[in-house]
Amino acid sequence: MRYTGLIENYRDRLPVDENTKLISLGEGNTPLIRLENIPATLGKDVDIYIKYEGLNPTGSFKDRGMTMAVTKAVEAGSKAIICASTGNTSAAAAAYAARAGIKAFVLIPEGKIALGKLAQAMIHGAVIIQIKGNFDDGMRLVKEVADHAPVAIVNSINPYRLQGQKTAAFEIIEELGNAPDYHCLPVGNAGNISAHWMGYKEYFDDSKATNKPKMVGYQAAGAAPFVKGAMVDNPETIATAIRIGHPQSWGLAHKVQSESNGWFDSLTDTEILAAQKLLTEQEGIFCEPASATSLAGAMRDIQTGKIPEGSKVVCTLTGHGLKDPDTAISQCASEMININPVMSEVRDAILNNM
Amino acid sequence: MRYTGLIENYRDRLPVDENTKLISLGEGNTPLIRLENIPATLGKDVDIYIKYEGLNPTGSFKDRGMTMAVTKAVEAGSKAIICASTGNTSAAAAAYAARAGIKAFVLIPEGKIALGKLAQAMIHGAVIIQIKGNFDDGMRLVKEVADHAPVAIVNSINPYRLQGQKTAAFEIIEELGNAPDYHCLPVGNAGNISAHWMGYKEYFDDSKATNKPKMVGYQAAGAAPFVKGAMVDNPETIATAIRIGHPQSWGLAHKVQSESNGWFDSLTDTEILAAQKLLTEQEGIFCEPASATSLAGAMRDIQTGKIPEGSKVVCTLTGHGLKDPDTAISQCASEMININPVMSEVRDAILNNM
Repeated sequence: MRYTGLIENYRDRLPVDENTKLISLGEGNTPLIRLENIPATLGKDVDIYIKYEGLNPTGSFKDRGMTMAVTKAVEAGSKAIICASTGNTSAAAAAYAARAGIKAFVLIPEGKIALGKLAQAMIHGAVIIQIKGNFDDGMRLVKEVADHAPVAIVNSINPYRLQGQKTAAFEIIEELGNAPDYHCLPVGNAGNISAHWMGYKEYFDDSKATNKPKMVGYQAAGAAPFVKGAMVDNPETIATAIRIGHPQSWGLAHKVQSESNGWFDSLTDTEILAAQKLLTEQEGIFCEPASATSLAGAMRDIQTGKIPEGSKVVCTLTGHGLKDPDTAISQCASEMININPVMSEVRDAILNNM
Repeated sequence: MRYTGLIENYRDRLPVDENTKLISLGEGNTPLIRLENIPATLGKDVDIYIKYEGLNPTGSFKDRGMTMAVTKAVEAGSKAIICASTGNTSAAAAAYAARAGIKAFVLIPEGKIALGKLAQAMIHGAVIIQIKGNFDDGMRLVKEVADHAPVAIVNSINPYRLQGQKTAAFEIIEELGNAPDYHCLPVGNAGNISAHWMGYKEYFDDSKATNKPKMVGYQAAGAAPFVKGAMVDNPETIATAIRIGHPQSWGLAHKVQSESNGWFDSLTDTEILAAQKLLTEQEGIFCEPASATSLAGAMRDIQTGKIPEGSKVVCTLTGHGLKDPDTAISQCASEMININPVMSEVRDAILNNM
């Protein structure tokens, strides 16, 4: 049978009825990939699974929430949606608005958006409003303007977003047969970690799982309000998707931490990029920098024993590496070999590099 | 249960046994998305489905063949693989080699590779050999050098590639309950159209389907050897993934055409880019230029009635739009609005663009 998206798949657990027109691009149903090489490198007996959310239609987990948010906006009669975005939300908003035949407005911070994401919002026909400010400024403006213009907010303060995103936890439980021991996520706005916890609790309460994971949120050191315990006014990190100083789900995420007995921690840009490189070179999985924050953190906590041996760990990779090709290329010690099109030169290039 | 890739899923139809170590990244299982807006634009009563192969792990259909090719190379004891590539094959080869812990060498034509694809091959640790020549030169060199260096060829002349790729036809039959009436694909090397036909025939012969589709192959006008009936020495098109003048599966693809009662046709770059834009703006689906060739052709043949009303049509989108962000951006009549971070300016930007 044809898979037609996560709302149809989890219809009875989402706020839709039989009359709701579903706006879907076949999102969700992403692979859970077991790491085969990195655990050995760590010298630890752990099972690490990657939930590869970059394989959603627009290349990030944002599609899970956007299918719900746009479906409900259309149901309510909205003709336009708006969001502030570091890039992934704008790409998803633009794509789902196109599918629905409504308008998308996206507020992006000046000069700090990865190429792939900007291309997506533009080609899907969104109106792009670039502001002289950062994501947090954009978020404030979106909330203000919603009272003065006929637009539905689809940022993560839209409660339907988290409803859609919780389905990732359902999928993981179905894939593993139970919840993992630890679930590690990159944390920016903290909506996704809150949504996952909602999903884990829901399946646990309905006896679809006999356990719940400890939820672990990792931030970039330059944008780590949860680790510092206070908002950060000028967040800085190469992991643009989590370059957020004033998280929207501040209270929710703290509740997740205490309820699940999890924790927050931070990683430097160097650690984040090293984890991205390790994943691509040792496992063949390419994610954007922000995504690698979950694995970088998990690896450190596995090595110190904070995550003990014998554990089953899921790391969410929030976005595909193709979202940010420039950062990827700048990381490579560009080994391109230029030759003439003759066999002997090809042979020598091979033999010298085996 | 956890989905662990197409070989495991179709184990009994692929050349592996219980001792074969599978090299997989969870490829396959891509969504088949029904177009909701474009058929109305055409004014024709047709069902068009998009097989969105850009949602494979490296962002293109090449992963289907590469999981098989690398699995068999590892089984045979190879420590290195090689391919010539317009980009997508190199990305897949690099990723699966990384997963397997072996070396990948990729020959790319100078200066004609889309950014995302190059980034992928590099970050997955492939050795990139750039030749002063085009894809066809690269292909010739790969064949020559395989006798002089210890490398396994993973281009589509590798028979395991097509075995992996045929699984897309299995999935479509399972999704639709039967084969479609028409299956439209972009044609470069013509391996993919041949692989799909192999899959359709196999399921038909085993009574898993009661029909077989007409296979329709669309080429770019500047690289259309099947349409011209002769090889093309200097292929040119913006659709870099099908910029191939000397197709490797020349004989196979002609057989597909005659057996399935299908046809070949060509489209200009302008038509291809228009279809890419239509898909992104009206359906929210972003593909690379070459991929849009299938829809561009299908739309034309639906409009002329060559594909009659009442038909069920599947168009394969071979690669994700994020593979080639530059071409996408250059297509946009860049409508970015720059404002100060104050509510009144945001409001005016919205009201002026509703």
